[in-house]
Amino acid sequence: LSGENRVLTMDTMNPNVKRVEYAVRGPIVQRAVQIERELKMGIKKPFTEVIRANIGDCHAMGQKPITFFRQVLALCSYPDLLEDGKFPEDAKSRARRILQACGGGSLGAYSTSQGIEMIRQDIARYIERRDGGITCDPDNIYLSTGASDAIVTMLKLLVSGEGMSRTGVMISIPQYPLYSATLAELGAVQISYYLDEDNCWSLDISELRRALQEAKKHCSPRALCIINPGNPTGQVQSRQCIEGVIRFAAAEKLFLMADEVYQDNVYADGCKFHSFKKVLFEMGLEYSEKVELASFHSTSKCYMGECGFRGGYMEVVNLDPEVKVQLTKLVSVRLCPPVPGQALLDVVVNPPQPDEPSYDTFIKVSTLAEKANMTQEILNQVPGIKCNPVQGAMYTFPRIHLPPKAILEAKEKEQTPDMFYCMKLLEETGICLVPGSGFGQRDGTYHFRMTILPPKEKLKIVLAKIKEFHQHFMAQYS
Amino acid sequence: LSGENRVLTMDTMNPNVKRVEYAVRGPIVQRAVQIERELKMGIKKPFTEVIRANIGDCHAMGQKPITFFRQVLALCSYPDLLEDGKFPEDAKSRARRILQACGGGSLGAYSTSQGIEMIRQDIARYIERRDGGITCDPDNIYLSTGASDAIVTMLKLLVSGEGMSRTGVMISIPQYPLYSATLAELGAVQISYYLDEDNCWSLDISELRRALQEAKKHCSPRALCIINPGNPTGQVQSRQCIEGVIRFAAAEKLFLMADEVYQDNVYADGCKFHSFKKVLFEMGLEYSEKVELASFHSTSKCYMGECGFRGGYMEVVNLDPEVKVQLTKLVSVRLCPPVPGQALLDVVVNPPQPDEPSYDTFIKVSTLAEKANMTQEILNQVPGIKCNPVQGAMYTFPRIHLPPKAILEAKEKEQTPDMFYCMKLLEETGICLVPGSGFGQRDGTYHFRMTILPPKEKLKIVLAKIKEFHQHFMAQYS
Ligand SMILES: Cc1ncc(COP(=O)(O)O)c(C=O)c1O
Ligand SMILES: Cc1ncc(COP(=O)(O)O)c(C=O)c1O
Repeated sequence: LSGENRVLTMDTMNPNVKRVEYAVRGPIVQRAVQIERELKMGIKKPFTEVIRANIGDCHAMGQKPITFFRQVLALCSYPDLLEDGKFPEDAKSRARRILQACGGGSLGAYSTSQGIEMIRQDIARYIERRDGGITCDPDNIYLSTGASDAIVTMLKLLVSGEGMSRTGVMISIPQYPLYSATLAELGAVQISYYLDEDNCWSLDISELRRALQEAKKHCSPRALCIINPGNPTGQVQSRQCIEGVIRFAAAEKLFLMADEVYQDNVYADGCKFHSFKKVLFEMGLEYSEKVELASFHSTSKCYMGECGFRGGYMEVVNLDPEVKVQLTKLVSVRLCPPVPGQALLDVVVNPPQPDEPSYDTFIKVSTLAEKANMTQEILNQVPGIKCNPVQGAMYTFPRIHLPPKAILEAKEKEQTPDMFYCMKLLEETGICLVPGSGFGQRDGTYHFRMTILPPKEKLKIVLAKIKEFHQHFMAQYS
Repeated sequence: LSGENRVLTMDTMNPNVKRVEYAVRGPIVQRAVQIERELKMGIKKPFTEVIRANIGDCHAMGQKPITFFRQVLALCSYPDLLEDGKFPEDAKSRARRILQACGGGSLGAYSTSQGIEMIRQDIARYIERRDGGITCDPDNIYLSTGASDAIVTMLKLLVSGEGMSRTGVMISIPQYPLYSATLAELGAVQISYYLDEDNCWSLDISELRRALQEAKKHCSPRALCIINPGNPTGQVQSRQCIEGVIRFAAAEKLFLMADEVYQDNVYADGCKFHSFKKVLFEMGLEYSEKVELASFHSTSKCYMGECGFRGGYMEVVNLDPEVKVQLTKLVSVRLCPPVPGQALLDVVVNPPQPDEPSYDTFIKVSTLAEKANMTQEILNQVPGIKCNPVQGAMYTFPRIHLPPKAILEAKEKEQTPDMFYCMKLLEETGICLVPGSGFGQRDGTYHFRMTILPPKEKLKIVLAKIKEFHQHFMAQYS
């Protein structure tokens, strides 16, 4: 079948989709899959396995699921187990309560499109506890298919206009590429503001201002996205910084989107997670009644790392009631988020209490703090690699200095220099990272993103291999 | 907060989203929820419960999940149960196999964006069995968050151009409103072709031709969507009809989208499900190497009715390889479909075999055939209601003749006449149906959609109440 006879071709397809880029699962990952196949077929390599440090996927990196959560999910999936003496009572009572809130008492019924009401109530109570009592209305909670889904939905609502009045959305550079991809797909204008690498990837209000002023010349800026703790950059924003962002959004009439999926992943001494909602409400009525905010959370990260269930939610604050009706209508079209993910979210926000049998064995400790330190220490020993402290989230985004000869060879291969570097690393060591160009970086700078998720011993090996590779690479190209 | 101070308002929001309509969860359902609350508060009504016959949600209507499927899901969720003697060996081996295909052996890892490879292989074998051996390439299978997700993704790829060259997509009227809603959201042109109510809602090629010719005057028609078995209309297409559609698509260069989520819901004598893929391949190379097709399936319907897990997939045939790369990239942005839904899909396509322990208790029988008959018989006894046989799916879409006085009163209330009718039915009987206007119908005709899912005894009561209501309504308004 030759191309010109087809209906759907590169020429006729949606041009916005063509413009979408998504590096986290891009060519480097495809090559990693190939290499794995080659290893299986017995092809000799200088390594025996591919180590995927490219994606924040905890269970894939060996983290074990939390027993209590999985007990509840098993009970919900197969309620005959409720008669089984082996399950603790608190797991059973959670499961019964969830099932009662499901249509026909089954995970197999569609839920309301906004998510099961009881679960939205539980989430609201959880947010209130997190935010020191600031009220949360369950009607402002929308469950979603992972945070991704809610982020896309919110962006979709915000996009309108043509030419000069086309919606512009401010996103950080580096950013999580869901944002740039979605803006491309929606045909919105991406407004890039750069995080300050020299100040531990902090957000600088004057840079927001610069980016906004420039953007106003060619689009209509209407939203500001923040990722805190940051992906890929691992920084945790100070309270002061968040206040500055809120003041900026209020003054410039920007809708705030706070991606807080790493809210429980904060490691560095002196760092603390501050939710945008809490800071907003503590800044007084002038802000708390004025600034429109959507904040996002997910079951995929934090201590549980349950990515596969695709549980997520957003809370909307100060959303126009009429727009809210439109939002509810929009999410109705796809019926509802996966109900097992909703159930999981319910236990995440409603974990075992001190007087319950599962409390003592319910362990939230994580080795990420230790791994964050180790990563930063070892990488900073390598001449030509410079790495900010990993304050939160689960990534490091070190800067790599590449010699001109390497940059030239990359150009000849029509690769970005950091893609060239990461591909070589993959071929020689089996370690799969994502080039910085997939997240955005200042021109002429190069980075890679690496997760700190591999088990400690393996992470040590990974870091040692990167060190060795980098030294070898520098020798080869200088 | 007054409207004009907000960033996101009805005036500034995405105008395409504003245009979206979605009746299945529209005002009538919202009123049903209110009534349920009122009943709980003790407010007296002429009925004691709301009966939701508005949505194809089997478990919510009391259908029990299939034990084998739920055993496998429980085992996958909480693998400690694999050591439990109580579970049958075949359920355990399915669970082990699924877990081995998951990252880190956990449902909690993201899968590849296209869906777990082993599950795609199992689906391919299932399709081959269904289609009498016609080959299916697992690389052409894309798992999704329910069929809804895959349908939206495919439509998204197809939309491009402006003005005269804007993509037009043909959909049946009546239709499942996901289609009209998605086309509105994407700003594509909806091309309506009417199903033939007088011929049991069959699809008439000359009507396709009429609709296409008209549409060519103002857009660029590029896809043709078919729902078979039909929702809301319950018809099952003959093989001859499908051949005609394929010939038409080939001649007119239209991309075919076959929504076959009800493929296992066929009841009427003499009716049989024919997949578009099979018919296409049996029509010879002239068609099988030429016509581009995407077909959709789901765990939500058929005998299992597992809606909440949001399992689904599409098979693409003859898709341009470069476009396929784009499709894979596009689905990567949202990471992956929910893994429990993928696992469920795997057991659906891979149920217990005769030599396995769960085979004897694995029951696929359904009472829908009987209920389909009963529905049609009782409704056709009512003067002013006319109802085609329910050949498949799980709905009836009877025509109701409304007196001019009722139509006038509806106009005064700014309601469509069938909305007026359904609202009144809801208030007086507690039965929740969806007005035909939500699916589309020929001007001047009125219908409602009702599921045949309530348990037999309850369905009988529902039908008797509708009968009584209709007679009373007619008396009141004539
Ligand atoms: C910053 C950020 N936001 C959102 C997501 C989406 O997560 P999910 O859709 O699994 O909830 C991710 C996933 O890595 C992320 O890093
Ligand atoms: C014709 C048709 N297609 C697609 C769907 C979507 O089903 P799901 O997204 O649950 O797989 C439905 C649901 O009712 C339907 O009736």
